[in-house]
Amino acid sequence: MKQVVVELGDRSYPIYIGASLLQRAAELVRAELSEQTMVVSNTVVAPLYLETLLKGLPDIPAHTLLVEDGERQKTVETMNSIITRLLEQQFNRTCTLIALGGGVIGDVTGFAAACYQRGVRYIQVPTTLLAQVDSAVGGKTAVNHSLGKNMIGAFHQPAAVISDTDVLASLPAREFRAGVAEIIKYGLINDARFFSWLEDNMDGLLQRDAACLAHAIEVSCRNKAGIVARDERESGLRAILNLGHTFGHAIETALNYQTWLHGEAVAAGMSMAAHLSVKTTGFAQAEARRVDVLLEKAGLPVSLPDTIRREQLRELMTVDKKSRHGRLHLVLLEQIGKAVVTPEFEEADLEDTLARYAG
Amino acid sequence: MKQVVVELGDRSYPIYIGASLLQRAAELVRAELSEQTMVVSNTVVAPLYLETLLKGLPDIPAHTLLVEDGERQKTVETMNSIITRLLEQQFNRTCTLIALGGGVIGDVTGFAAACYQRGVRYIQVPTTLLAQVDSAVGGKTAVNHSLGKNMIGAFHQPAAVISDTDVLASLPAREFRAGVAEIIKYGLINDARFFSWLEDNMDGLLQRDAACLAHAIEVSCRNKAGIVARDERESGLRAILNLGHTFGHAIETALNYQTWLHGEAVAAGMSMAAHLSVKTTGFAQAEARRVDVLLEKAGLPVSLPDTIRREQLRELMTVDKKSRHGRLHLVLLEQIGKAVVTPEFEEADLEDTLARYAG
Repeated sequence: MKQVVVELGDRSYPIYIGASLLQRAAELVRAELSEQTMVVSNTVVAPLYLETLLKGLPDIPAHTLLVEDGERQKTVETMNSIITRLLEQQFNRTCTLIALGGGVIGDVTGFAAACYQRGVRYIQVPTTLLAQVDSAVGGKTAVNHSLGKNMIGAFHQPAAVISDTDVLASLPAREFRAGVAEIIKYGLINDARFFSWLEDNMDGLLQRDAACLAHAIEVSCRNKAGIVARDERESGLRAILNLGHTFGHAIETALNYQTWLHGEAVAAGMSMAAHLSVKTTGFAQAEARRVDVLLEKAGLPVSLPDTIRREQLRELMTVDKKSRHGRLHLVLLEQIGKAVVTPEFEEADLEDTLARYAG
Repeated sequence: MKQVVVELGDRSYPIYIGASLLQRAAELVRAELSEQTMVVSNTVVAPLYLETLLKGLPDIPAHTLLVEDGERQKTVETMNSIITRLLEQQFNRTCTLIALGGGVIGDVTGFAAACYQRGVRYIQVPTTLLAQVDSAVGGKTAVNHSLGKNMIGAFHQPAAVISDTDVLASLPAREFRAGVAEIIKYGLINDARFFSWLEDNMDGLLQRDAACLAHAIEVSCRNKAGIVARDERESGLRAILNLGHTFGHAIETALNYQTWLHGEAVAAGMSMAAHLSVKTTGFAQAEARRVDVLLEKAGLPVSLPDTIRREQLRELMTVDKKSRHGRLHLVLLEQIGKAVVTPEFEEADLEDTLARYAG
């Protein structure tokens, strides 16, 4: 088993990474459990892993609450239904929530934990690769509003994260690759050596080789933990974690959040950010080529569906929440392993990048 | 003008106390304002003070949002309606909310600010005495759930508090006295000298003498600020601020939150806590007498309506959220100016206190 610690003073917490960890849950997080413990999961994940997790918590009379699967559940209403159950069970401020599932379950359970009696403990047990390397780490919780994704939320760090690599075996290939997109992101923004390792080990990773997987998750978490530790509330540096995301969110919105997975949109967005970086920060053309080659090797898109028009993308990027004081900020690459957040790019260069990717 | 600072590191903020401060709002909090500023108020307060406040913000194109008056508005739905408006106006993470009103407006606006894009700035402009000395200070925000008050919320400190004593002129006498209950509380839990000052100056305070008022609000805020600075998230000490509240919440619930104001229930609750303290902590009988005398001088209740039965109160106290691990914790007095939070009292003594106050 590997362990990464997110260093945040008295809010520090461990991320456990390895095989067969659900079975050892009580041993790993005993100090964070309570007689009042509730596992929140969804109707797809629970039949696969809930029993294993509950067996791993033998002395804990854990309640369970299942919600439907899917992004449509990431709402204030679902958060409220979790809180209703906690109140019905007379859970107090020393209770513990456990989120067993992907990003949606983690985000909505974490937000319920942030708000219940102004904050109770929760443990993340992510069951997708994307959640294990990204959304379960760092304390960003949120639900969607009809006018915008993740618009209602809180920074609320988990008490622990248990990333059992066994659960990734059941993940559909496309969802797995969507997680790989965020793994590649860590190499790009913060870790050139890891990027090279990914170039050399992408085949093993895609085959879900246990050692490759554990290493990729560990290094991803270590990179994210380091960035979060320096800027927990995204007042600056943490924004580099959004590489590819401003383009990506515009792509997702243009596609009505159907067609493409988040990680796929981020992959194409990273390709676009690399392209714009060549014109803006002096990022080498050859390095931008390496970005596309690695993304393609991971089976991820580096071009957009024909239906997307560049005017539409430009407009959607303007309303993205990372636009401050009317000036769009973008995450760009100076070199592989070094990203910057900047409002300083030529509009003509952005238009050129959009024209290169969208009709 | 008086100024009290709540010392919380990079979350420290000033409380401004004095006459005619609404008119000077921009001058006082200019650094905390944004081109995207929204004032949230209610339909009772806004006709009285909104125009004055907006005139005090001459360079700010402030939007306004009015909600209905009353505790029934303190819901997730109201919070969501504030967020809808912020999104419709395309407010970003650098926006500022201003809560102009009593505890309900402050709590729901503060909670919306805590959640919008995971946290934006807000400024408290409390318009009741209770809010000026209690709810607007310390960063507790919340909304109610049908199964419990303040069950959904966050600790989110304001960027500033502007307590204009002029606005208290329009406060009904009963609401004013309800605020005085919390003022007396600070003397009881933390400040014997202030308690004596209140004994000497209650008449002036009730006549809303400007100097008396400003002093009482300043010292109350100073006491609360000191306690919050030492225990922002109520892991221990801060719980002494709940003196009289466990009894008080049980009384309010028994009365269906009709009949009595919160401050009135807290007053009777403090009398009960003093009574139980005599048996439990060795609090002097003569001191308990001083508590009742001062409360009565303030026109506050030190006995309960005949309709309340002691069995009902005892049961309601058990489900109070300050009950941890099944053991009820109470705030008791060791002497005037010194409170303790303790689970160590005899059930028979509690029953005796309940019998003394309820039929």
